[in-house]
Amino acid sequence: MDQVIDFINVNRDRYIEELKQYLAIPSISALPQHAADVRRAAEWTADALRTAGIPDVRLVETPGNPVVYGEWLGAPGRPTILFYGHYDVQPVDPLDLWITPPFDATVRDGEIYARGAADDKGQVFMHIKAVEAHMKKAGALPLNMKFFIEGEEEVGSVHLDEFIRAHKPLLAADVVVISDSTMFDRGIPSICYGLRGLVYFQIDVRGTKTDLHSGSFGGAVANPALVLAQILAQMKDRGGRVKIPGFYDDVRPLSEEERAEWRKLPFHETRYRKELGAPRLFGERGYSTLERVWARPTFEVNGLLSGFTGEGAKTVLPAVAMAKVSMRLVPDQHPDRIAELFEAYVKKVCPATVELKVTRMHGGKPWMTEFDNKYVRAAGRAIQKGFGQAPVFNREGGSIPVVSTFQEELGLPSVLFGVGLPDENAHAPNEKLDLGNFHNGIISSAYLYQEIAAV
Amino acid sequence: MDQVIDFINVNRDRYIEELKQYLAIPSISALPQHAADVRRAAEWTADALRTAGIPDVRLVETPGNPVVYGEWLGAPGRPTILFYGHYDVQPVDPLDLWITPPFDATVRDGEIYARGAADDKGQVFMHIKAVEAHMKKAGALPLNMKFFIEGEEEVGSVHLDEFIRAHKPLLAADVVVISDSTMFDRGIPSICYGLRGLVYFQIDVRGTKTDLHSGSFGGAVANPALVLAQILAQMKDRGGRVKIPGFYDDVRPLSEEERAEWRKLPFHETRYRKELGAPRLFGERGYSTLERVWARPTFEVNGLLSGFTGEGAKTVLPAVAMAKVSMRLVPDQHPDRIAELFEAYVKKVCPATVELKVTRMHGGKPWMTEFDNKYVRAAGRAIQKGFGQAPVFNREGGSIPVVSTFQEELGLPSVLFGVGLPDENAHAPNEKLDLGNFHNGIISSAYLYQEIAAV
Repeated sequence: MDQVIDFINVNRDRYIEELKQYLAIPSISALPQHAADVRRAAEWTADALRTAGIPDVRLVETPGNPVVYGEWLGAPGRPTILFYGHYDVQPVDPLDLWITPPFDATVRDGEIYARGAADDKGQVFMHIKAVEAHMKKAGALPLNMKFFIEGEEEVGSVHLDEFIRAHKPLLAADVVVISDSTMFDRGIPSICYGLRGLVYFQIDVRGTKTDLHSGSFGGAVANPALVLAQILAQMKDRGGRVKIPGFYDDVRPLSEEERAEWRKLPFHETRYRKELGAPRLFGERGYSTLERVWARPTFEVNGLLSGFTGEGAKTVLPAVAMAKVSMRLVPDQHPDRIAELFEAYVKKVCPATVELKVTRMHGGKPWMTEFDNKYVRAAGRAIQKGFGQAPVFNREGGSIPVVSTFQEELGLPSVLFGVGLPDENAHAPNEKLDLGNFHNGIISSAYLYQEIAAV
Repeated sequence: MDQVIDFINVNRDRYIEELKQYLAIPSISALPQHAADVRRAAEWTADALRTAGIPDVRLVETPGNPVVYGEWLGAPGRPTILFYGHYDVQPVDPLDLWITPPFDATVRDGEIYARGAADDKGQVFMHIKAVEAHMKKAGALPLNMKFFIEGEEEVGSVHLDEFIRAHKPLLAADVVVISDSTMFDRGIPSICYGLRGLVYFQIDVRGTKTDLHSGSFGGAVANPALVLAQILAQMKDRGGRVKIPGFYDDVRPLSEEERAEWRKLPFHETRYRKELGAPRLFGERGYSTLERVWARPTFEVNGLLSGFTGEGAKTVLPAVAMAKVSMRLVPDQHPDRIAELFEAYVKKVCPATVELKVTRMHGGKPWMTEFDNKYVRAAGRAIQKGFGQAPVFNREGGSIPVVSTFQEELGLPSVLFGVGLPDENAHAPNEKLDLGNFHNGIISSAYLYQEIAAV
């Protein structure tokens, strides 16, 4: 094992140069014009696995982007890890806020800046390099591994559930390992035991056939942008509580025990607020910030568009207005049920003066596990060796819907071991990854395989 | 006079070809990248006046776009018309809704389609051609004329008041003539005796320093797009009434006499609704559609922008949200007073969880005149000759702020004689002008000079 770790330390700089090539591929799954780039990223991922010493790698087609599947099953009798990650990335707009181009990875102050650096190419590559170190120095892995790296995570993993159901024998394993989450804070590694789910919608409101002159027609017809604002304003009350009837019915209450554990975590509210640049923190009344993000559902507006948005003034009465909205869900809310409640409520609050169209985009179930299972404990030991300190156990506000599918369809527990940081701008301009965490993550991953092999 | 009218009839097709050249210049004053085009349109306008027989034409610089000024003062003892119009046009987005390119004027079914066709190049050109007919056939105009054609009308005539105050002797006249409004309906020419005023704002709401991942942070900070929606939703109540305190204080009540006159007008509510493609008409409770548009103030959202607005889904918690909003005003509301009330109300309803910026863009006073003054009567006779029927008298929902300035600064009444139609898409895609009305407008203008000469 020492030789494996030495190899990782010696190759530190090479890993960064290789990661830069991976990050150079604009594999934005949300934008159809990047379809070829998405495929190129799949092929790059497959090649990287082969280079790492996994000979049996292939692209498996789906109705959308291909899955990169690889396996090394040379340790009969030992456990099998199903490693899950994704090679697709978020869009990059607003592009003008990036200090350096999103697909020209740049290192500044020990951090690598690029779209996908943290979410999730950097963390996928971390495992590929840990595998490589084992294969190069030991000629083998300490356990069996299957690699399952998809290309539609950033568009809701639309074909993934179907894929998993259709490939159960192929994906059979003992435990899922995922590195697509963040550490609790800089210097505080963590293991995540809960995730929120998601439902995402587009709302389109049409007032008239065409845009109109706001002087000649203003006051005679409903303004679709104003109607949209009125609809959205009815989604949350002043206490930050979602007003959709039935929205909270299936929310599992936070236990006093869990709340007490979280109060012990070194969370600095003022620093958090200042780092975000928010005048004040705001959320559901009666809950702390961590509770709001980790254990309470929310309604968010993700985008708004209507009428004239350029420089200056245009006196237009817009024909249409559009909003992208989403709800984060917690156990035991079900995306389908929440989607129905939302659609019914929007239809109810929308006046008959406009045409309304509600389009469901995608979703995923929330997930939670017991954090004292043997795989989580093994991961804790590996992280302690890689980072030099024991991890804390936390939930996350984000969604990795597939975790719930792995549990339901394959009966597999998941270990969520992420090395991103909360301020690394996943989904925002200037996404980055701390290279120290990246390096410690490779070491931790190498130990993780050894620890899980021994459970 | 018969020779003048014959000349106009003979040259009908030439006028259309010349107008196409004028409409080919994308003189969009709202967009800085079109600054050179705006100037080119000013020069084209000046040349057209010279060609029409007005030798003394020049561009007068302002801090913004130049004013085209021309004069013919060869009729001492006769009245002087100050003709006002504008050579700038509205932006053209959304461009993909135009059936033919906005700056490649195309004739279909007796209508010419192009940005500026109705608002206002077509109507300015109508007067230039009426002047040309007099000059070519009579060698003179029946009265004195000053031409005052500006290039910032579509951005709120920001430098116009100052220009008028600084050039009072130059602009001295007996009456202002403006053709920048619409007829009451197809086949029903009209003279406008009231206009609404305007105040226009941009509202910017900032929640955080950068866009955030809506999973990792959703629920912990205010969502600026939702806050913006909540602010806008508080601008109007369910009865279509503006909720800004004090907003209606200075509104001059509609007289029963005026309401009775308007009820006699051939206004077809169902046809109007169907032409607009609105599921229902909607406006302030207690008022008819014409009353809402002509005599009641309104609040409109002109644009909305926040977060992700592309195809697909992006789980972003936006950093900022922006709205363009405007209020149409009626006598005796004052734009400055309404602007103060609006700003105070927005600040009051905006929560402390976000940074708020309210930017006043431009505005103009509402205007109303007595419709039985001698110039209006003269215009009525001219229109009867040009269109073969007597005009109706109406107000308009749009704003021509300079009309109020002409009254206050120069003591001049205005005659508003427009030949646009309400469905001609001023400020919207596929703007057009009916060529029959354009032609009858040239004839009416030629008669107008003769009629006013005789008052």
